Amino acid sequence: MDNWSDGFVAVDWGTTNRRAYLLDGAGAVVGEMEDELGITSVPAGGFELAVAAIKERFGDKPMLLAGMIGSNRGWREAPYVPCPAGLGDVVERLLWVEHDRVAIVPGLSIVSGNRADVMRGEEVQVFGLSRLDGFGGDATVCHPGTHTKWVQVQAGRIADFQTAMTGELFSLLRDHSILGPMLQGHVDPGEPFLAGVEAGYSGQALTAELFAIRARVLLSRMKQCDAPSYTSGLLIGCDLRAGGSLSDQKEIIVLGRPSLTRLYAAALSRCGYRPREVDGAEAFVAGMQLIKECLT
Amino acid sequence: MDNWSDGFVAVDWGTTNRRAYLLDGAGAVVGEMEDELGITSVPAGGFELAVAAIKERFGDKPMLLAGMIGSNRGWREAPYVPCPAGLGDVVERLLWVEHDRVAIVPGLSIVSGNRADVMRGEEVQVFGLSRLDGFGGDATVCHPGTHTKWVQVQAGRIADFQTAMTGELFSLLRDHSILGPMLQGHVDPGEPFLAGVEAGYSGQALTAELFAIRARVLLSRMKQCDAPSYTSGLLIGCDLRAGGSLSDQKEIIVLGRPSLTRLYAAALSRCGYRPREVDGAEAFVAGMQLIKECLT
Repeated sequence: MDNWSDGFVAVDWGTTNRRAYLLDGAGAVVGEMEDELGITSVPAGGFELAVAAIKERFGDKPMLLAGMIGSNRGWREAPYVPCPAGLGDVVERLLWVEHDRVAIVPGLSIVSGNRADVMRGEEVQVFGLSRLDGFGGDATVCHPGTHTKWVQVQAGRIADFQTAMTGELFSLLRDHSILGPMLQGHVDPGEPFLAGVEAGYSGQALTAELFAIRARVLLSRMKQCDAPSYTSGLLIGCDLRAGGSLSDQKEIIVLGRPSLTRLYAAALSRCGYRPREVDGAEAFVAGMQLIKECLT
Repeated sequence: MDNWSDGFVAVDWGTTNRRAYLLDGAGAVVGEMEDELGITSVPAGGFELAVAAIKERFGDKPMLLAGMIGSNRGWREAPYVPCPAGLGDVVERLLWVEHDRVAIVPGLSIVSGNRADVMRGEEVQVFGLSRLDGFGGDATVCHPGTHTKWVQVQAGRIADFQTAMTGELFSLLRDHSILGPMLQGHVDPGEPFLAGVEAGYSGQALTAELFAIRARVLLSRMKQCDAPSYTSGLLIGCDLRAGGSLSDQKEIIVLGRPSLTRLYAAALSRCGYRPREVDGAEAFVAGMQLIKECLT
């Protein structure tokens, strides 16, 4: 597969947007594009055309695509690889859309007794961590987002993970619930956020704690401008309870968009963990480069 | 106030619908109407007209109105009565819209340290319980709905209560979330529902348990037709944890619409409580009649 040695295009194609990187032969990013053409914005049968826009921008390079693009609502369905799974397992199960030139990275699944979980896209970022300074191959990783992932890495392989719909719940509450008008402001990791984290982490019932926000604002026990931060903290605290219980490690890598990792790092610190923030975009590029190196 | 002795109209006016009852001089229901004209469907300044439709149906009788009609988005704002509060406190604080003829029943509030909560309308049903066979004046009451209320009644007065946004969360998930397509079916209190109750009652993090439903269906660990009942059970189980902790009483009165009290009664039984179902409409009429008897 000599055509890969001059570089390739790595695409992180999610539900609501996509981000493509042009990597040179050494793995350096030499071009980047981002748009709102997530898989739900592409009409059935429209993926060839959507990919053509990337080729037009970066030339007709080999391409690796990861994320929801490989789901049953994406371009082609790449069956989940069951955990525990390492980089090699994912490379073996690449779904080739165009022979030796365009492949979709499969997602991962967990099935164990009553537990079941899936991920698509975050696994590339997690594998990219092995390029990180001081990364020893074992880690607890938190990947915050619409669907936050808590990932156990053992000897460089993804051993276990759990998803929480934290970001999606916040959006539902802000956009559609009775709390909506109170949640339109900015979220920052100050004291109201941290108070929410403590309430969520303590295991109070979320259904009751959420309504209490409205009542506190109505009865002047909480400033309305603090409600977005408190609510975000409450959900993230609940999330930490779920994710923190996966492991007894106190050091947690928080991987993702810096605006989100900042919030999670503040929440983790408040709950006695030692967070380390890693930019998800850099980890994604590193992970795709590692996959490419297995191919050539 | 002799004009009340020939009977009156009692209106339960909520956010999305309203229900009006014509009571005769002895308190028997001799007429009933229900429509979708909840307070959010009435334009600003439109309440006189909306009330006129009730008068047209039942004649120009004295009228007691309860529920969100007394909120800051309703006809006139009736300030909350702080708990502990009995029927007498509410009667003293009726907001008279028309002298001696039309009054709005105020809601109740709790403020205690960091805790704050509000209710409007359910208090009438709770006071109506005193007409119930064998009601001794002390009770834990669960009033399920969009915003489920857990109420402590002591010596016939409402001593404490807590709200959970259980029904609203279910609607948000069904109408707007990634789980939506899986939640369109029927909810019944069979085994999938009860399994959800147990998961929610055990204190698992709701953010993670909700996503797990999607993963289990995707990975064939749960039948899609069971997802609505399981999800409803999960939220109600979480609710029971919040509400059950208000009291160590095992006997709980479940007050409300029979379709909902049936679900909560099944959930409570599974968690070791002894539920007693009471029809909310009957309790509402009894509570309004008690208020009327204080007036005449």
